[in-house]
Amino acid sequence: MSYAKINAAILTIGDEILIGQVTDTNSAWLGQELSKAGIRVNFRISVGDDESHILDALDKASQYADIIITTGGLGPTKDDKTKQAFCTYFDTHLVENAEVLEWVTRIFRMRKLPMLESNKFQAMVPAACEVLFNRSGTAPGMLFKKEKKVYMSMPGVPFEMKTIFTEHVLPAIQSSFELPYILHRTIQTASIGESFLAEKIKQWESDLPEHIQLAYLPSVGLVRLRLSGYSNNQTQLEMEMNNCVAALYNIAGEYIFGEENDSLAEVTGKLLAANGYTLATAESCTGGYAAHLITSVPGSSAYYKGSIISYANEIKTAELNVTDEILRTNGAVSEQCVKQMAEAVSKKFNTTFGIATSGIAGPGGGTDEKPVGTVWIAVHTPTETIARKFNMGDSRERTIQRTALQALDMLRKELLKQ
Amino acid sequence: MSYAKINAAILTIGDEILIGQVTDTNSAWLGQELSKAGIRVNFRISVGDDESHILDALDKASQYADIIITTGGLGPTKDDKTKQAFCTYFDTHLVENAEVLEWVTRIFRMRKLPMLESNKFQAMVPAACEVLFNRSGTAPGMLFKKEKKVYMSMPGVPFEMKTIFTEHVLPAIQSSFELPYILHRTIQTASIGESFLAEKIKQWESDLPEHIQLAYLPSVGLVRLRLSGYSNNQTQLEMEMNNCVAALYNIAGEYIFGEENDSLAEVTGKLLAANGYTLATAESCTGGYAAHLITSVPGSSAYYKGSIISYANEIKTAELNVTDEILRTNGAVSEQCVKQMAEAVSKKFNTTFGIATSGIAGPGGGTDEKPVGTVWIAVHTPTETIARKFNMGDSRERTIQRTALQALDMLRKELLKQ
Repeated sequence: MSYAKINAAILTIGDEILIGQVTDTNSAWLGQELSKAGIRVNFRISVGDDESHILDALDKASQYADIIITTGGLGPTKDDKTKQAFCTYFDTHLVENAEVLEWVTRIFRMRKLPMLESNKFQAMVPAACEVLFNRSGTAPGMLFKKEKKVYMSMPGVPFEMKTIFTEHVLPAIQSSFELPYILHRTIQTASIGESFLAEKIKQWESDLPEHIQLAYLPSVGLVRLRLSGYSNNQTQLEMEMNNCVAALYNIAGEYIFGEENDSLAEVTGKLLAANGYTLATAESCTGGYAAHLITSVPGSSAYYKGSIISYANEIKTAELNVTDEILRTNGAVSEQCVKQMAEAVSKKFNTTFGIATSGIAGPGGGTDEKPVGTVWIAVHTPTETIARKFNMGDSRERTIQRTALQALDMLRKELLKQ
Repeated sequence: MSYAKINAAILTIGDEILIGQVTDTNSAWLGQELSKAGIRVNFRISVGDDESHILDALDKASQYADIIITTGGLGPTKDDKTKQAFCTYFDTHLVENAEVLEWVTRIFRMRKLPMLESNKFQAMVPAACEVLFNRSGTAPGMLFKKEKKVYMSMPGVPFEMKTIFTEHVLPAIQSSFELPYILHRTIQTASIGESFLAEKIKQWESDLPEHIQLAYLPSVGLVRLRLSGYSNNQTQLEMEMNNCVAALYNIAGEYIFGEENDSLAEVTGKLLAANGYTLATAESCTGGYAAHLITSVPGSSAYYKGSIISYANEIKTAELNVTDEILRTNGAVSEQCVKQMAEAVSKKFNTTFGIATSGIAGPGGGTDEKPVGTVWIAVHTPTETIARKFNMGDSRERTIQRTALQALDMLRKELLKQ
């Protein structure tokens, strides 16, 4: 291609990463974000909290890349060495930064907590750096420039790192380097596994133009498809991308619930809110996880009234009128039980829609007839109550997650029919 | 220190790791296993499928470590370069290995698949290596020795890597090196921030023997403390470690809820189960997340009966008898409201204990008097109902997480008093 390639190296600092006590998810996230911005990560290195090792890693990273990004080792405690290492590397010293000190002081005042010497130390930064303000925490990020290379350091706490990256690191990169035009589209699918989706869209995939690449990004219960196009001709690339996406909707539209960062709970919530509908849930095997997904969306109180989590059968009977007859004849994991749960909670909470889950999350409780992973989900609508049976596999955690997402996707499909 | 420290470096090979398409869980797993075996991982490096980068990384890793472990880049396709790089590094060439060829042939016969040239290539290995047999797949592992250092290469597919590591790599390490005894202890704390904990245990920390090291591992709502001790004298180290931990309990015991991989929900669940107690929850701002943490624990149905998620005020009134008077005078985020919620759900579900949450998770809904992040938590016990107010900050996600964990920790403390 005709544009200059910009390379980045990621340096992770911290003993906890090396000995595997913490899985390094920051590097994967940074790799994705940098790729999206048209930057190639060609090197990653992890060292412990040891100044000489950090210096050595900075040297090595500089050999590989134009942009050197470090995470970790910026905490207020003695075992963190990153700031000192940067002082040595850039031949500078720590100075107090008034803005950071004010910010840290304000945070502690707001939280009504006394401020310690170690917290004040957060405001000491290398004199040679530009401070990257951290509005999610007390450890500021730092930016250094040397011989046309840019060095940026962020704390290792994922949400602080992500905020600083988005607000300061990425803009600094974009203003320092000339990047090719890159276009990304992410299509979100649910209710279909990765290999089935791949089979379904095989022909479409092999027909993609060479400069538009496809990546499958599966997570529990969902598969995201990311299309990345690279070009110097923005208009043409946008047109090509739109055509590819339109063709995908034609083939696999029933599984597509949204694009980019849409979540199933958000999409479902918007459909509810737009029509003035309300929702209640009755959860057994998901134990509150469906409610958690729904209420993670800001503003969900506009349409979500609440839930009865009927973990014990006696609660199913007392609160949701699941009869002894149903429990005895069909069992708690049955079509009859989940339908009754969904109908009862909608009536009780006076909502337009209701969803209910009941299943065997495991590891115990499975039988030959209903093995671990057996799940029933019901959706109550103004006109009917539908229910479906699934086998979600033998992991408790994944069964809970898959069931909650599947329930939301069933609700979404019913909402589209209204 | 009196023993020779054995260091290991982990080298990950593959473009998909660098661009974040795959999160590198292999390195974390290897870090844990090597640490447990008394080997210190002091360096990790990731490069793409590029021979010169692999050679450079092998050089660097050799500077840091006695044991160099690589994963990835051993597939049958053209983009995998690891075998060629090892040939160059050890000045050798590829030869066909009869045992591997037979194994690969057998696998393809069993799967009734035709064998391609690229699959036969799996049996070509560097002449200078000892083959590490891979009974989980077709790409063999390799072992090389040079200047008292051991180099081992494994495929990147996690279950293949784990099998080869356990069956061949670890035994080879144990027979090649005299290893020190290493002891890890992890102490789990809640309800105290990292810097406050650090301040509280400052003296204890500086009194630790030189061969016992401390690391702070904070996550939202929790801080783990990891102690790592190195010695040739196992009995003495165990005694010293026990003394250190005992001293820590003396200073900060009220914040310690468990050790190693304990979760707050597990520890609380065990306290409930051991005494035959039962629990119900009434959640507003946490929207099911507390119930989710509780029901993530296998076997929680033995003590957890369920929840009323009263997201709308009308549900607080209808289901939990929160009076209009309370809602009008004190509001839904008040001591009176959460106490009533905790008491009502315990009574309704006939449980020994009840917990309730109500707060302003944001981003909307805050006032001067009750800003975003204001949360009330109540715990109902057989003898009383206690409530506490918190400010959990301005992130919706973290307020939900912190509140649920804080509620569990308040319950834990009440359970210890019974």
